[in-house]
Amino acid sequence: MIIVMKPKAKEQSIQNIINVIEAKGLNAHLSKGKEITIIGVVGDKALLQDQNLEIYEDVDKIVSVTESYKLANKKFHPEPTQIKVGDVIIGGNNLVIMSGPCAVESEEQLLQTAHAIKKAGAQILRGGAYKPRTSPYSFQGLEEEGLRYMKKAREETGLPVICEVTSLDAIEAAVKYVDMIQIGARNMQNFFLLKEAGKSGLPVLLKRGLSATIEEWLNAAEYILAEGNPNVVLCERGIRTFETATRNTLDISAVPVIKEKSHLPIIIDPSHATGVRTYIKPLAKAAVAVGADGLMIETHPNPSCALSDGPQSLTFKQFEELTEEIRPLVAYMGKRL
Amino acid sequence: MIIVMKPKAKEQSIQNIINVIEAKGLNAHLSKGKEITIIGVVGDKALLQDQNLEIYEDVDKIVSVTESYKLANKKFHPEPTQIKVGDVIIGGNNLVIMSGPCAVESEEQLLQTAHAIKKAGAQILRGGAYKPRTSPYSFQGLEEEGLRYMKKAREETGLPVICEVTSLDAIEAAVKYVDMIQIGARNMQNFFLLKEAGKSGLPVLLKRGLSATIEEWLNAAEYILAEGNPNVVLCERGIRTFETATRNTLDISAVPVIKEKSHLPIIIDPSHATGVRTYIKPLAKAAVAVGADGLMIETHPNPSCALSDGPQSLTFKQFEELTEEIRPLVAYMGKRL
Amino acid sequence: MIIVMKPKAKEQSIQNIINVIEAKGLNAHLSKGKEITIIGVVGDKALLQDQNLEIYEDVDKIVSVTESYKLANKKFHPEPTQIKVGDVIIGGNNLVIMSGPCAVESEEQLLQTAHAIKKAGAQILRGGAYKPRTSPYSFQGLEEEGLRYMKKAREETGLPVICEVTSLDAIEAAVKYVDMIQIGARNMQNFFLLKEAGKSGLPVLLKRGLSATIEEWLNAAEYILAEGNPNVVLCERGIRTFETATRNTLDISAVPVIKEKSHLPIIIDPSHATGVRTYIKPLAKAAVAVGADGLMIETHPNPSCALSDGPQSLTFKQFEELTEEIRPLVAYMGKRL
Amino acid sequence: MIIVMKPKAKEQSIQNIINVIEAKGLNAHLSKGKEITIIGVVGDKALLQDQNLEIYEDVDKIVSVTESYKLANKKFHPEPTQIKVGDVIIGGNNLVIMSGPCAVESEEQLLQTAHAIKKAGAQILRGGAYKPRTSPYSFQGLEEEGLRYMKKAREETGLPVICEVTSLDAIEAAVKYVDMIQIGARNMQNFFLLKEAGKSGLPVLLKRGLSATIEEWLNAAEYILAEGNPNVVLCERGIRTFETATRNTLDISAVPVIKEKSHLPIIIDPSHATGVRTYIKPLAKAAVAVGADGLMIETHPNPSCALSDGPQSLTFKQFEELTEEIRPLVAYMGKRL
Repeated sequence: MIIVMKPKAKEQSIQNIINVIEAKGLNAHLSKGKEITIIGVVGDKALLQDQNLEIYEDVDKIVSVTESYKLANKKFHPEPTQIKVGDVIIGGNNLVIMSGPCAVESEEQLLQTAHAIKKAGAQILRGGAYKPRTSPYSFQGLEEEGLRYMKKAREETGLPVICEVTSLDAIEAAVKYVDMIQIGARNMQNFFLLKEAGKSGLPVLLKRGLSATIEEWLNAAEYILAEGNPNVVLCERGIRTFETATRNTLDISAVPVIKEKSHLPIIIDPSHATGVRTYIKPLAKAAVAVGADGLMIETHPNPSCALSDGPQSLTFKQFEELTEEIRPLVAYMGKRL
Repeated sequence: MIIVMKPKAKEQSIQNIINVIEAKGLNAHLSKGKEITIIGVVGDKALLQDQNLEIYEDVDKIVSVTESYKLANKKFHPEPTQIKVGDVIIGGNNLVIMSGPCAVESEEQLLQTAHAIKKAGAQILRGGAYKPRTSPYSFQGLEEEGLRYMKKAREETGLPVICEVTSLDAIEAAVKYVDMIQIGARNMQNFFLLKEAGKSGLPVLLKRGLSATIEEWLNAAEYILAEGNPNVVLCERGIRTFETATRNTLDISAVPVIKEKSHLPIIIDPSHATGVRTYIKPLAKAAVAVGADGLMIETHPNPSCALSDGPQSLTFKQFEELTEEIRPLVAYMGKRL
Repeated sequence: MIIVMKPKAKEQSIQNIINVIEAKGLNAHLSKGKEITIIGVVGDKALLQDQNLEIYEDVDKIVSVTESYKLANKKFHPEPTQIKVGDVIIGGNNLVIMSGPCAVESEEQLLQTAHAIKKAGAQILRGGAYKPRTSPYSFQGLEEEGLRYMKKAREETGLPVICEVTSLDAIEAAVKYVDMIQIGARNMQNFFLLKEAGKSGLPVLLKRGLSATIEEWLNAAEYILAEGNPNVVLCERGIRTFETATRNTLDISAVPVIKEKSHLPIIIDPSHATGVRTYIKPLAKAAVAVGADGLMIETHPNPSCALSDGPQSLTFKQFEELTEEIRPLVAYMGKRL
Repeated sequence: MIIVMKPKAKEQSIQNIINVIEAKGLNAHLSKGKEITIIGVVGDKALLQDQNLEIYEDVDKIVSVTESYKLANKKFHPEPTQIKVGDVIIGGNNLVIMSGPCAVESEEQLLQTAHAIKKAGAQILRGGAYKPRTSPYSFQGLEEEGLRYMKKAREETGLPVICEVTSLDAIEAAVKYVDMIQIGARNMQNFFLLKEAGKSGLPVLLKRGLSATIEEWLNAAEYILAEGNPNVVLCERGIRTFETATRNTLDISAVPVIKEKSHLPIIIDPSHATGVRTYIKPLAKAAVAVGADGLMIETHPNPSCALSDGPQSLTFKQFEELTEEIRPLVAYMGKRL
């Protein structure tokens, strides 16, 4: 931690800061310039947690030099983590595709989709049973009934299944039926839910919040990891910007940034990132080429009648074309699909 | 709802859309230009909820002309709503100030604050017992113990009390101790929590999400209202932008926009909006002048040792100066403090 | 300047940095923690301008502790600056209102407006003769003819006049006719134009760019000041965010931030900030209350036929109501209108 | 154009709008719903340019259904455009790489770079002679001297050369020395410069503004095209968002969006998009995979001493590795490098 003093800070003000630091058993290193003095704090800055040095007299600003996340931090865990969901490995040389409908609507719809995406090469079936919708008057999901269909789809196809959870109730139901749970973008800083997801023991797919910085995202992952659950996969799904040509702005740079800062796998969801069907294939290719560990892509037997996110869902035929087209690209990246 | 067709849309494509609309018992009004045809849909667009017209052939885009929120909408409820919290009225000619520490740290800290803010003119005591913190290693709040101190502070001072809730457990505890609950910015689209807040029967202060549009915010209010709870107060607390000189960017225009679109009261929280103590007074004045129904301002007996948000907390003396300075401004606005 | 080394940086890497710093005649102060070493550089960091220390081996990041703007910086110029435009003083205890049409359309339109705004209390007449328009097919302004009308309006009313300039040609014409020039938001980082505005000798109103940070804005002012022209007034006119209920988001916090970081006066333009006529009055009040030195407000004899920005222009009657209503507020702030 | 009336709009208000529309020789199509009436305007909406219908009584909002750019619009020019710069074709099956230093610093630096990038496979040499820098105290470029070195580099290597222009003077100098000019992000809405670039007759690389929507970007291109210059290439270089882990946020979705809306070629600049050297290679791959027509990548003989943008510049060795690695990817996309 570095404390930058205001120009012409009084000697007493500087001494006050040093006293606080040393009273906590930390060392203060002084750098005095002609105009500005800076004080470096060496040691465990958590000891200063109950001191708000920025409002001490003559303090200009505090600069943090270490990240607050530890378990998610590559500095302390340099090897990339691989996560097992059913028999599927996420991370390493695998390029994992999760696919399925935005919302589970019926047993038939889900089973039909499960078979179709398996045939096309997807390894995990997704489906929403608890739907966070902007308006209370939109379809809110089939809840536990939807989870039962997911379990059935796994039994029929062997595909592990993933479902978003939005409450403790949903987590308690999910552990009975699915292989992985998802924390959605709108709940990325629902810290209560993160802790419960950590306790559930299931692998967790953690979507990035619409306006979450990468640092906040890794801190959200830290909440899950800190409960003793090491199985966190990150999912970039677009952030909110001023641009309206796409529903969100896919922050594709998040992949190399995460690969530098963390050991956790990261996948990309081009469906939510754009909200437009025709943009999904080029963005899926970009995601593979940038080094993502997987893709999440929405599919539906009949997108024009989907109860949620139809405009961004692929038909089975479109999805199969996509997986066929990206196979050589996956090989180029030294991975397998 | 308006469906804009692509230039040179085929006759059959236009007819397909008309057929879907009429099959739902709605009327389609056709406007044919030289290049572009637009189709106006008249009637209850909810009937088209299971049709994704944007992916029908030759459709360019869909334009919505009505808001999805109804109960929060001024169009259907033109009179401004006043909300009662204990004996305090929010809305109308009252300018309500809520104040207190970011986090309840001890009984002494809270009682001391309650007396000080009451003396300075605040009408409601705030205090956080369940703290949503970016890092799992930061202080997370005293939970139910904190709520007990809040209740005690009300008994001693007569001030109604408000506390943020972050889970169903917290709501269930809160109803026993406090007069109003708060849904924080990070939970604004935690729809599960919104429904439970609606069911709680307590008045709800709904903070705007960091990247929530005003339309999404009113839809979030709609979740609470739709549970039969009409007592929702909105709170603008800064949105996330590219600017880093302040912690967030206070969207002060939200006040006149909300006054035009909704009948719900709106207050402003300059403490969270800026994160910097010296900016709070000028922004509090701006908030009163723009027509806000109230202010939420953080105070602490000793900000430099606050466990949360110290740098943006006012001392009691600073808070008293602020309330004294704004009194003539409140009168200028035709309101009372 | 502070250089933060990566955890476990090699001794040699640290020594390399120290060598570079010392070779420039600067002093390096080392703070060695258990995990991280930081190096404080004391002295004139401009000496390191041709060294990109961030890409030296084992360097994690560089933190700047001083602002790059000097002449605009309050640290080196603590007294607030007052700027004279004709006989009008901007800054100090004056609340200055600039008003007039977005675009000068005809002599009659401009003269009519000049008389009306003068009567209502405005002190400076604005008018656009060179219009930056998103589409090349929109009205682009009357150019020098418009400037002649502005000069005539000054002769008739005595009001100093201000006009936006968009090129060197426009500046060369403007010096013949107007009292103050404006650099618009889209040209805030047109550094060529900034330098020429500096050389012109006229007072300059510098609007904030749509996505400019406050630091970039002050650096843009520095370009003008560095040419020996001390007469710069800043104008906040809304920044670009995700919110679409208003055309831009008025960053009202910019006023206290600028007051803390700079000595230059700052005014607010609520017309461009919102683009909606009914929001202008409440935001003008907020601007006065937050401590702005003035307002820029668009007026037009007949807004429904204005060739540019009609929807955000006030009629003369609306403008007069606004100035009447804010007079007591100006007095409350200890200023005169 | 669609005019949406407020709920319960008066008959007279509706008639007023119809009268205005018909007085301009346009047709008004009325769709009356139970609550809301919408009026479709069919014909050339430019005829309504001097009418601000949004402020007529009882009008709720105006919805535009056609784009304001015509020459840049794919609807009216469905074939992708190819642009010739020297002997290099941009667009079609070519993947064009432009490379070189951010700033031309000396003849030796530029020639050395030109040879190195040619050897690695780049087809166009870039170099900045007029540098837009945030601070007036940073290196501002060698100006015409720099252009002379660029010409010399072309003579020695045969590579066409491109240079940013920031003023009319710079354009007048550039036409004597270079093959293509660049309008930088900060000047994207410097409409004066766009027109002059159009008149110059040289091919223009138009970078996207930091906060420009895709629609504004295409309107900026329209300014150049409308001067009779059809040779415009677009360049996505990152937009400004809240995320600070990268200097800007690369909006990779802009490529499929532009491919859908326009016929102009689009390239990607991962150097400016991220500002971090290690992220350039993965983003260059993503750019190729998403379908961009080219890349712009900064290189420097000795990045640690570069006078501008050193931290994001590649060494020659890194650049050569990058071009080698992307060759198979270019082939996968059916293109040649």
